[in-house]
Amino acid sequence: MNQSYPSWLKQRAELTPGRLAIKTDEVDLTFWELYQRVQLQIKQLVALNVKKGEHVGVLMKNSVEMIESIHAIFSIGAVAVLLNNRLTRKEIAWQLSDVQAKHLICHEEFLFQVDEEINVIIVEKLHKKSSLETDYLMEGYKTDQVATIMYTSGTTGHPKGVMQTFGNHWSSSIGSALNLGINSDDRWLLSVPLFHISGLSILFRSVIYGIGIVLFERFNAEKMNRAIMEDGVTIVSVVTTMLNQMLDKLGNEKYPETFRCMLAGGGPVPRGVLEKAIERKIPVFQTYGMTETASQIVTLSPEYSIKKLGSAGKPLFSCQMKIMKDGEDCSAYQEGEILVKGPNITKGYWKRDEATQKAFTEGWFHTGDQGYIDEDGFLFVLDRRSDLIISGGENVYPAEIENVLLSHQAVVDAGVIGIDDEKWGQVPYAFIVSNRTISHDQLLMYCQNNLARYKVPKGITFLDELPRNASNKLLRRKLKEFLK
Amino acid sequence: MNQSYPSWLKQRAELTPGRLAIKTDEVDLTFWELYQRVQLQIKQLVALNVKKGEHVGVLMKNSVEMIESIHAIFSIGAVAVLLNNRLTRKEIAWQLSDVQAKHLICHEEFLFQVDEEINVIIVEKLHKKSSLETDYLMEGYKTDQVATIMYTSGTTGHPKGVMQTFGNHWSSSIGSALNLGINSDDRWLLSVPLFHISGLSILFRSVIYGIGIVLFERFNAEKMNRAIMEDGVTIVSVVTTMLNQMLDKLGNEKYPETFRCMLAGGGPVPRGVLEKAIERKIPVFQTYGMTETASQIVTLSPEYSIKKLGSAGKPLFSCQMKIMKDGEDCSAYQEGEILVKGPNITKGYWKRDEATQKAFTEGWFHTGDQGYIDEDGFLFVLDRRSDLIISGGENVYPAEIENVLLSHQAVVDAGVIGIDDEKWGQVPYAFIVSNRTISHDQLLMYCQNNLARYKVPKGITFLDELPRNASNKLLRRKLKEFLK
Repeated sequence: MNQSYPSWLKQRAELTPGRLAIKTDEVDLTFWELYQRVQLQIKQLVALNVKKGEHVGVLMKNSVEMIESIHAIFSIGAVAVLLNNRLTRKEIAWQLSDVQAKHLICHEEFLFQVDEEINVIIVEKLHKKSSLETDYLMEGYKTDQVATIMYTSGTTGHPKGVMQTFGNHWSSSIGSALNLGINSDDRWLLSVPLFHISGLSILFRSVIYGIGIVLFERFNAEKMNRAIMEDGVTIVSVVTTMLNQMLDKLGNEKYPETFRCMLAGGGPVPRGVLEKAIERKIPVFQTYGMTETASQIVTLSPEYSIKKLGSAGKPLFSCQMKIMKDGEDCSAYQEGEILVKGPNITKGYWKRDEATQKAFTEGWFHTGDQGYIDEDGFLFVLDRRSDLIISGGENVYPAEIENVLLSHQAVVDAGVIGIDDEKWGQVPYAFIVSNRTISHDQLLMYCQNNLARYKVPKGITFLDELPRNASNKLLRRKLKEFLK
Repeated sequence: MNQSYPSWLKQRAELTPGRLAIKTDEVDLTFWELYQRVQLQIKQLVALNVKKGEHVGVLMKNSVEMIESIHAIFSIGAVAVLLNNRLTRKEIAWQLSDVQAKHLICHEEFLFQVDEEINVIIVEKLHKKSSLETDYLMEGYKTDQVATIMYTSGTTGHPKGVMQTFGNHWSSSIGSALNLGINSDDRWLLSVPLFHISGLSILFRSVIYGIGIVLFERFNAEKMNRAIMEDGVTIVSVVTTMLNQMLDKLGNEKYPETFRCMLAGGGPVPRGVLEKAIERKIPVFQTYGMTETASQIVTLSPEYSIKKLGSAGKPLFSCQMKIMKDGEDCSAYQEGEILVKGPNITKGYWKRDEATQKAFTEGWFHTGDQGYIDEDGFLFVLDRRSDLIISGGENVYPAEIENVLLSHQAVVDAGVIGIDDEKWGQVPYAFIVSNRTISHDQLLMYCQNNLARYKVPKGITFLDELPRNASNKLLRRKLKEFLK
């Protein structure tokens, strides 16, 4: 049953026109006002030839216009390809080409020379009309229809486009609601990037639940604390490093009792941070998810945060998880690969059939992450994809950095690992073998030209040879020892 | 995408084992305890040969055993056919035969001689073991899989079995949650029959949301008021006549502030009753739905109850409605037939392909009810299926009563209409043309033998001829005039 939905934004605007949809420093918009603005943008995009079924790159910063653009793309029946604005031009150009984008909507500050065939739309230059004639008949959605594509890197170099359907986003929103509850007075603070699933999923929850977003262009601990104190924020999505800074800035103050959920992704929250949160009566919900699961799939409720310290929790309602090792299901406490199943899981990678097939076994998605489940059914994640580096909430894949290093003529071999960092949690660090004299700084400069800033190694160590096993596999654990 | 779910009861028991699932005068059961009891019943039913895919009649009164039986049937992968225990044996036997039931689970008080091929299981006689060996592996559900069948009469005599899928029940629960919100502390008072969709839908909401049911065998205004005052009830499902009695018994007392929703189905609530409710700060949500929509599809929130007096409200999120007349969509205020669309709508009538086809046009379900939508998008229901009589929340179809009357040798023609009744809202009243002398009481006795008590006419008027139009259609409106 490929279920169809009326446009979520349109139905929300009809059901609760007067409720707050978005609040920023500059504006407060109701769902009806948002709907009107999206109507305007649809007409502008249609006039610029954006058509149903086409892929539209979105290269923007968190803003009302970005939310409008995403809804407008959906309403035309096109697919929004969310681009990480921290990437280099080279990386973005590669993704746009791989995804066969016909259009690129961007904020002017991110403008760059793209392929001639791509129609570039600068959002600041869209003609702002004040009134509308007739409403554009917004396209409805189907469960199986691809809504968004987000690129995520794997262990093999180039990133892959994860296709997220409307059904995935719907199920993700509903699963989260069945866990956290829904209150029409809720306000969700959105300061994580909208081009990541952590941010985008809040956009969906807003229209599906009918709750307001308090929108930040970027993270700011002090301002976020103030919004919780003064702007009626009840839920915030954070990564550990953000939570830590917010607690520091909070001092001895307390959030109001209406604040009900600090949803913390991107790795387990350390005990010290949890204890600080508990002291201040801040309910921290730790969670585990990824681009392929359209955000959370496993979440820990606060009553277990100390008792099950380090756990990511239990699956959301209608999702399932299990641990497998060597093709067998594991028993309690036995370590293996985490597999998940549920209606929020991607239908696959854009034009990567082989990778898609490899990722699924009988409907179960291989996360590539290692972990175990305890006797009470709580998940403990041991390693994100063995080599994954999580830096300030961004996933950094060593293979991608290694590929860039290896493309330099002076580099014969390269290995990248994550090292602990006080501010970002982890940062990448490189080991290389070179065949000629090249300076540390020259190599870093080369990386800066080819990689987003957060992927550039924090340091480089030159070695005569990298530690590899018999089948020539890099031994990353051995690399770590060079730093001790 | 025919989505699959793990068993809802099993997942709920795993996620929130210690939360209250059911509270009655005798017991408090957590979800874990309910799960254990259902496990036991599954084994008993399997031992009695109940198999996946079979139809199992359920002829019971509201009780913990009835909830257990329904979950047990689902977990075996069988279909629960919910039978109205107010029907006559003849009516029940007809439904069991029509639905090709292999088994009948019943409370002893409803026991009767059924077809030899039907395996009768008396719930009181199931062997109660105290401990379990290993858990039965509960079957999961699929979106398209039929979970339940409920019989509902139409305009053409015999009732039809409405097939409700797990996807229908899921979508109904979610649609209601997106409208009313979800709070893990909610408790839903269930005193309407579990064999009706109004009661059964609460069973689903309980396991899907993880909230408790306060279970009543039958309606009792005083006891219900007490449960709201003392047992933490936050939501109650009622029909108008129940609400009226509860308000009467309440006197000048008030419900606690935590009580948040009086969900009122079965026709608009009169202004007087609404005003009494508002005085006592009781939030009344009026709603419109039917067996075919797996409960609510249109609901009015309390802030509009006076402003939009008589309206049933707006569609639940992901549902749609429209009014049609002579094959054309109607504009605001124009009267016509109400059509609805959404994932909660039945896939059709059991073995009635023609009736199913007739009921749908391009995915839109013809309710047969008349109404209009105002300029703000609020639905006003004018007539339930022109001739439908709603008596104390039960649907009564004139055609069914007329067929019984016509089967009597003394009756040549018969017409039934609904007349106003202080206690039940409406009751049926019959007009007949007879070809020999027969008394009023003899005819009523005949009805009592063949019809459930609430379908037996309150009175009979003998006429020489019934008012019919040129094409011989009965003019029910004219019948009403004979009573003035």
